[in-house]
Amino acid sequence: MNHPMAIRRRSIKLHKQWGGKLEVRSKAPINNRRDLSVAYTPGVAAVCRAIAKTPRAAASMTIKKNSVAVITDGSAVLGLGNLGPLPALPVMEGKCILFKKLANIDAFPICLDTQDVEEVIATIKHIAPVFGAINLEDIAAPRCFEIEGRLRSALSIPVLHDDQHGTAVVALAALINALKVKGERIQACRIVVCGAGAAGTAITNLLVQYGASDVIVVDRHGILCHGDRRLNKPMAELARHTNRQKQVGKLIDALIGADVFIGVSGAAGIVTAPMVRTMNPDPIIFALSNPDPEIDPKVAKNAGALIVATGRSDYPNQLNNVLAFPGVFRGALDHQVRTITQAMLLAAAKRLAACIHRPTRTRILPGALDKRVVTAVASAIR
Amino acid sequence: MNHPMAIRRRSIKLHKQWGGKLEVRSKAPINNRRDLSVAYTPGVAAVCRAIAKTPRAAASMTIKKNSVAVITDGSAVLGLGNLGPLPALPVMEGKCILFKKLANIDAFPICLDTQDVEEVIATIKHIAPVFGAINLEDIAAPRCFEIEGRLRSALSIPVLHDDQHGTAVVALAALINALKVKGERIQACRIVVCGAGAAGTAITNLLVQYGASDVIVVDRHGILCHGDRRLNKPMAELARHTNRQKQVGKLIDALIGADVFIGVSGAAGIVTAPMVRTMNPDPIIFALSNPDPEIDPKVAKNAGALIVATGRSDYPNQLNNVLAFPGVFRGALDHQVRTITQAMLLAAAKRLAACIHRPTRTRILPGALDKRVVTAVASAIR
Repeated sequence: MNHPMAIRRRSIKLHKQWGGKLEVRSKAPINNRRDLSVAYTPGVAAVCRAIAKTPRAAASMTIKKNSVAVITDGSAVLGLGNLGPLPALPVMEGKCILFKKLANIDAFPICLDTQDVEEVIATIKHIAPVFGAINLEDIAAPRCFEIEGRLRSALSIPVLHDDQHGTAVVALAALINALKVKGERIQACRIVVCGAGAAGTAITNLLVQYGASDVIVVDRHGILCHGDRRLNKPMAELARHTNRQKQVGKLIDALIGADVFIGVSGAAGIVTAPMVRTMNPDPIIFALSNPDPEIDPKVAKNAGALIVATGRSDYPNQLNNVLAFPGVFRGALDHQVRTITQAMLLAAAKRLAACIHRPTRTRILPGALDKRVVTAVASAIR
Repeated sequence: MNHPMAIRRRSIKLHKQWGGKLEVRSKAPINNRRDLSVAYTPGVAAVCRAIAKTPRAAASMTIKKNSVAVITDGSAVLGLGNLGPLPALPVMEGKCILFKKLANIDAFPICLDTQDVEEVIATIKHIAPVFGAINLEDIAAPRCFEIEGRLRSALSIPVLHDDQHGTAVVALAALINALKVKGERIQACRIVVCGAGAAGTAITNLLVQYGASDVIVVDRHGILCHGDRRLNKPMAELARHTNRQKQVGKLIDALIGADVFIGVSGAAGIVTAPMVRTMNPDPIIFALSNPDPEIDPKVAKNAGALIVATGRSDYPNQLNNVLAFPGVFRGALDHQVRTITQAMLLAAAKRLAACIHRPTRTRILPGALDKRVVTAVASAIR
């Protein structure tokens, strides 16, 4: 049953059987005319008038109190690429059921039939009133940075691109505990981040915020270096506060003498055993690309890695965004946070790491369905 | 408890207690890692790929199979007017719970933060992929006609403005049964429709489609007359196939010798007892404005009306859209109808009327929660 082919077959079969994973249900009883007159007309008119008078009342008397829109343009679906809005829907529904299961949030999927930045922003602004927060999902870089940034300025509810910040919170939490196992301070580490897209950028920013001072970012063209005119704006910004020694070269060069590798490249197998052997002793390897990691965990272990983590559920140390987003949004809704700041995300990563009192080489993070996690993470977002 | 003030107070109290009337729940179990791997990653990737290959598969494997967006721009909320998106939300949620309760449809409210026709159309087009059908709600005329018309052309899922067509289906069904009580054919009746907005326009069109040949439409400026240059485009269109004798004047003039009055004017008390007495004997009076009808039902009865209907639940013969929209959309989703045509709506009105085998003066329609209604109406939409 754990065989990938068997999982795929079972997933197709069950999705057909479910006919969609979500349903929208009533919390109000509708069993007679009296119920109808209170939940619907004429009684509801009083609620409308109350909100017209005091818009804030919507946050206590409507779904806005507890709703999150899970919005994608289908441009970067899982590791599958630019599939468009409809094929992205099963992933968004999956996210929504996790929101409900783990954080009791009423999340609804919105798959946009456009990938134009201006249209995406305009559409999200226009549908925002119903939602208490917005989770952007599976939107390709560099477009995702502008979309998130401008929506944050335009809207009075929190907007968070989970592929950036959810991933960053979980990666930092994992690194905090991995360094605890190794007995090392982050300030003393050279960290190589492979991938300069949504995840790589956010991970790097959060690592720097946490205190990392020697980070090198590599993308498919090589090491990002300040002053390189070929870089787009977000990459140039990234280069500006990393790679202080202005090293040039490829991934193979960056890894020599590094302590930590964090891969979010989407490129399977780009790290080899000989490359791991050029790293400093007892390296930490997070090979997070899905479905196939940058290096097979067994190969990495055999080449000397102290701790290996992947995005997969069939190896120890699974790094999964599900450890972050339910709690982040639970906290944001409960405390009516208007903007989720870097400081809050940093605190969330620390609280998540602290869920494991004694991390070990094969257990640096709690399990995806661990009930303590949401409460711990939510307490940081306020 | 049936006192309006008591209902209002109870409604406010319960809306606060519910904290929104809707919740989004999972139909898939998520109790362990194996569940997660099937409903979410990695299994879901196979479902994404299947839909990418065959987009039609979304209609069986995602929420699109059974979802309706209930969309408003907040410009004509109940009888309350242009309140904007947020105060409209409790009404949209109310609609969504009725969709679920009566037709097991998963409906989600979308309140748009714009009333610009182009922006409304663009936004709805962009969010359409997730939905199996679109219910436009509480959008003011004449804008509603252009929005509905253009979305129908642009989208491959059904789009229906309920304030137009739901109201029309219920009004025609009620009239069919009222005429049965009276023992009269519609072809022999002079019908005065008061109100030339969303509801008045759709009611008139459906009446004409059904066979009514002597319909006069009146708005606040008087009788609509073909050739009157002051009329906007939708009203000119309406005038073109009504009022064949090119009568001019006001409502008081139109009612002289009329057999049926259908009021959707939003103007309380504009019909008086003396006006009813100028109508033909045994007139039928549908005073549908909410919350206060065009004439008090008792006054109308005392002035000689054979049958009186209103939109209110505290009088006999309540005309409520809830008798139409759940069945119309249930049929549209089940039969994967691409466009809901006038012919289907006509058939729906007939089936709805047929739910009452022996109509009487105080019972021309089934109750709002009558379970037979959805099945009957749905069978007409195919």
